[in-house]
Amino acid sequence: MGQSYHTTRRVEFRDTDAAGIAHFSVFFVYMEQAEHELLRHLGLSVMFHDDHGKISFPRVGARCDYQRAVKFEDIMDIEVSIVRLGTKSVTFEFNFSHDGQAVASGQTTTVCCRLSDTGPPQSMPIPTWIAEKLSEVVV
Amino acid sequence: MGQSYHTTRRVEFRDTDAAGIAHFSVFFVYMEQAEHELLRHLGLSVMFHDDHGKISFPRVGARCDYQRAVKFEDIMDIEVSIVRLGTKSVTFEFNFSHDGQAVASGQTTTVCCRLSDTGPPQSMPIPTWIAEKLSEVVV
Amino acid sequence: MGQSYHTTRRVEFRDTDAAGIAHFSVFFVYMEQAEHELLRHLGLSVMFHDDHGKISFPRVGARCDYQRAVKFEDIMDIEVSIVRLGTKSVTFEFNFSHDGQAVASGQTTTVCCRLSDTGPPQSMPIPTWIAEKLSEVVV
Amino acid sequence: MGQSYHTTRRVEFRDTDAAGIAHFSVFFVYMEQAEHELLRHLGLSVMFHDDHGKISFPRVGARCDYQRAVKFEDIMDIEVSIVRLGTKSVTFEFNFSHDGQAVASGQTTTVCCRLSDTGPPQSMPIPTWIAEKLSEVVV
Repeated sequence: MGQSYHTTRRVEFRDTDAAGIAHFSVFFVYMEQAEHELLRHLGLSVMFHDDHGKISFPRVGARCDYQRAVKFEDIMDIEVSIVRLGTKSVTFEFNFSHDGQAVASGQTTTVCCRLSDTGPPQSMPIPTWIAEKLSEVVV
Repeated sequence: MGQSYHTTRRVEFRDTDAAGIAHFSVFFVYMEQAEHELLRHLGLSVMFHDDHGKISFPRVGARCDYQRAVKFEDIMDIEVSIVRLGTKSVTFEFNFSHDGQAVASGQTTTVCCRLSDTGPPQSMPIPTWIAEKLSEVVV
Repeated sequence: MGQSYHTTRRVEFRDTDAAGIAHFSVFFVYMEQAEHELLRHLGLSVMFHDDHGKISFPRVGARCDYQRAVKFEDIMDIEVSIVRLGTKSVTFEFNFSHDGQAVASGQTTTVCCRLSDTGPPQSMPIPTWIAEKLSEVVV
Repeated sequence: MGQSYHTTRRVEFRDTDAAGIAHFSVFFVYMEQAEHELLRHLGLSVMFHDDHGKISFPRVGARCDYQRAVKFEDIMDIEVSIVRLGTKSVTFEFNFSHDGQAVASGQTTTVCCRLSDTGPPQSMPIPTWIAEKLSEVVV
């Protein structure tokens, strides 16, 4: 059983909209940035190479539920974990809070794929050494 | 029983990423733009005023599933409809396709709220005249 | 002597910020989209291939001056022209207006380059057939 | 004579485009974020209140020249300074570098304005206490 990863994020001015709050779509960008930060923390990356070529994890789904608005310069805590580590896919969960109050929670699902120059990505089992690192944040 | 609304969208260069495809987060921006275009088509807007003040529809949830990547300058067809018109909330559905093949499908849920300068938005029943217009695209 | 090209652009909600107006940075995205639309109109593209490989036009400079703010759903007229067509570089000019009043004016400069997989882009003279098409909008 | 301010910035995946590099428009967002970080460092903000109402600094101009491309996860050093502190306006300069090599340099100019609910912003002299803090980074 792993342990979730924590990071923070300040709402920048470009992240806001004319309603005066962080735009709902920027939470998906925050999620990706937190995921990439976690991957770096685990010694992983967004692209891998083995003897057969390139491996990456295209996103097949993303969702976010919003509980409370945040404004310019608010600093959010983001808790990141993996709620499902399948044979071929990974589901990350993100919980955003501000001043101890829930702001939003989201999930993204990615699928391990071999990339090809001549066709669409082909799903494949997650290599063992990658799965072992990811398991550190499975909760 | 209403009828879905159709619009199109070209993938702009800023919408792409270093993987060479439209970034997953831009689909949420496309969904909002298609929703706003639909509201204008119905004679509605994103903000209303009545005798008691301002009414708007903050987003409480958004999701998207991805079937196929699209690239710079690809033109997508977007089919928009309402799959649930509740007393206080609306769920829009968006089906993106390119050259007749499914690219992505998403949903956003908004809640009718009275806005206040002194506190968070308060949910309220959707005014009848707005609900009647929205019902034109309930499928 | 050529003639400028005209297009329009609606300010989308994601383009606004907490000041209630279109964010200054989105004008650079509008400029690129108007430039690409013009290139398509002229029968050109952002990437070309000849016997020696790929040719493209990386941006070396961009600027914008702002006269007036625009808001969500404002529709701007954008006038695009080329104010300098050099041997290797092109300077586009963009004049944004709304309801007949100047909103902003900007310029971008791109340089014709041969792309390489092994090093940075190398500048080269603009091929004659491309320069001829671009000259249609030199003012 | 003041001293420039330094910060860093990692190129995030959403900042890249299909050319595989940071999109030219994101440098304007980086500039604004670095400016806001500097303002916080100086004990200032983007919006002020005095006895007569709200004061802010709308942007009237922005420019950037590009020397070298940066890629996903590259970390840039950003040097921020004020190259002109006028009676009513401020010109910030930003120098971006990566691994000791120049990437881009830009400027933004803002004008001190009183905001009004009933008309456009009116320019006014920069209040002395704000000018004094800004002078710390005039070079």
